Amino acid sequence: MHISLVKAETLVAGVFEANGVLPDTARSVAHALVQAEAAGQYGHGLRRVPVYIGQARTGKVDGKARVSSLQPKPAVLTIDAALGYAYPALDLAVEKLPAIARAQGIALGLVHRSHHAGVMALTVERFAEQGLVAMMFANAPASMAAWGGKKRLYGTNPIAFATPVAGTDPLVIDLALSTVAAGKIMAAKQQGQQIPADWAFDSDGQPTTDPDKALKGLMAPSGGAKGAALALMVEVLAAGLTGSSFSYEASSFMAEDGPPPSVGQTLIVIDPVAGTAAAAERIAELASELASEDGVRLPGRRGQNARQRAIAQGLEIDDAVIAAIKALA
Amino acid sequence: MHISLVKAETLVAGVFEANGVLPDTARSVAHALVQAEAAGQYGHGLRRVPVYIGQARTGKVDGKARVSSLQPKPAVLTIDAALGYAYPALDLAVEKLPAIARAQGIALGLVHRSHHAGVMALTVERFAEQGLVAMMFANAPASMAAWGGKKRLYGTNPIAFATPVAGTDPLVIDLALSTVAAGKIMAAKQQGQQIPADWAFDSDGQPTTDPDKALKGLMAPSGGAKGAALALMVEVLAAGLTGSSFSYEASSFMAEDGPPPSVGQTLIVIDPVAGTAAAAERIAELASELASEDGVRLPGRRGQNARQRAIAQGLEIDDAVIAAIKALA
Repeated sequence: MHISLVKAETLVAGVFEANGVLPDTARSVAHALVQAEAAGQYGHGLRRVPVYIGQARTGKVDGKARVSSLQPKPAVLTIDAALGYAYPALDLAVEKLPAIARAQGIALGLVHRSHHAGVMALTVERFAEQGLVAMMFANAPASMAAWGGKKRLYGTNPIAFATPVAGTDPLVIDLALSTVAAGKIMAAKQQGQQIPADWAFDSDGQPTTDPDKALKGLMAPSGGAKGAALALMVEVLAAGLTGSSFSYEASSFMAEDGPPPSVGQTLIVIDPVAGTAAAAERIAELASELASEDGVRLPGRRGQNARQRAIAQGLEIDDAVIAAIKALA
Repeated sequence: MHISLVKAETLVAGVFEANGVLPDTARSVAHALVQAEAAGQYGHGLRRVPVYIGQARTGKVDGKARVSSLQPKPAVLTIDAALGYAYPALDLAVEKLPAIARAQGIALGLVHRSHHAGVMALTVERFAEQGLVAMMFANAPASMAAWGGKKRLYGTNPIAFATPVAGTDPLVIDLALSTVAAGKIMAAKQQGQQIPADWAFDSDGQPTTDPDKALKGLMAPSGGAKGAALALMVEVLAAGLTGSSFSYEASSFMAEDGPPPSVGQTLIVIDPVAGTAAAAERIAELASELASEDGVRLPGRRGQNARQRAIAQGLEIDDAVIAAIKALA
């Protein structure tokens, strides 16, 4: 069906509220999921509502959690997501970190007792829209091994980055450190197709083209040993520094039962004028250099364009997805 | 020949001084190159001396540069490498950033008008040895294209990371965002061998197995589009924020003529106790989990072990390398 962003948010927030989630939290989560949908990130969009609600019902996510923050050092904000959804904690980061970054030049946001971070591109972009450079790191339930190993140790541990660009929209990067998203392997399984040998390993750590063995096994890190090394870095930043569960300790984001995942997210926000007044103009030169070449996309433009269309024209959502959401009210 | 670290440093520093390089700078550069050699990073070790000296002779590097720093914001240190070697600027970062990170919780070091960063693992490790988490980003003369492009736009743009680990040596990560180092392609060329198709592109942006075409063409980014996206992130952090040349503007680190490369390096240093007092202990649990698995190496251990051996037993250096150094005195 066709639905405006505002109506989609109202619908989704209402379903969360009907399931005992605090009104402010319900609005925050609904906004994030609708924005993900608008950006074309369907895997982190409205299809997540049934799982999110299911976890609120079992108590795996605390829908009544109240987010709080402390500033233990002048440039550090620790945020307790309190075993609720991640979005209220990320909203608080977006509210408070910019002033810290402008005052100190750089700010560190450490989110603990958190949950699925959603589309990190959308979070870092909110800083870049305020003229700030932002990096974000998140861990996630384990699906990758250390390089040379075969135990699930790291999540796909995404890195996101956004920078303001003078005169135009921010550049936005958001990438998981696995070669592909697990969704691609699930899609291959549903279609009865084999997968390329560099997407995943079986549970013995051997490359596999069988999507079934891949799903029971391990996601392959992007770029091999280098992706695994970066996943370790993200593990330290997102979980080690925040006091969160490591990926190998975290419960599933998808299953409705079990203890809270209690993962972490780390944000680094930089005021680009701290180093050089002309940073945003110089970054605009770099963006022009990229854009001048045929075949090169500016990172972030696809999501930004999708959102513009969604704002103007509304969302087109599968009837089955809407029906599944309404059934939860 | 066999030589102790101290004697190697004295020899190399003397050669730099004989070529008009300031004594303090000569010692800083000699120390960094000998440490690289000790860590087994020969490509960034004593083999660089002839090129480094050649550039001092032509004025491409200013051997008389005096490094200076400013603190424009409480958590930001800008360092002017003054078109000299990078190492005195990095030494200043290692001297000054820890106190800032401990006071503010996080510190940002922005190095501009700089040169070849050498082995970044060794720089970030110096912070971790003081109980601090450090990330480092550097740009470099362009050798990779944007994803989908065929113009040289990005350097191999390395990322390094180190974290303290309670009770043992730091974990240290240092990786270029190209699939392999250019040195591997040069070695294949010298041996008349083909290279794997995922190492490089020819100048039309097509995969090539011909090392000649690869060297005239483009290095392939690690993990394809993801490596290229991270290279853009590094470009913004290391050059955009520091006011340095972008990689496509930077002159070669290897050629002796031309203008100074004037690249940048960015350091982010975090006091891990800012978020949770137990960070180093938790990271030790993660390291144990890694180490418990057969076939998994702890990142950084190979270099640390090589250094221990070099400290105990001295360096074994090709006579030709020593002769080339002595010839420059």
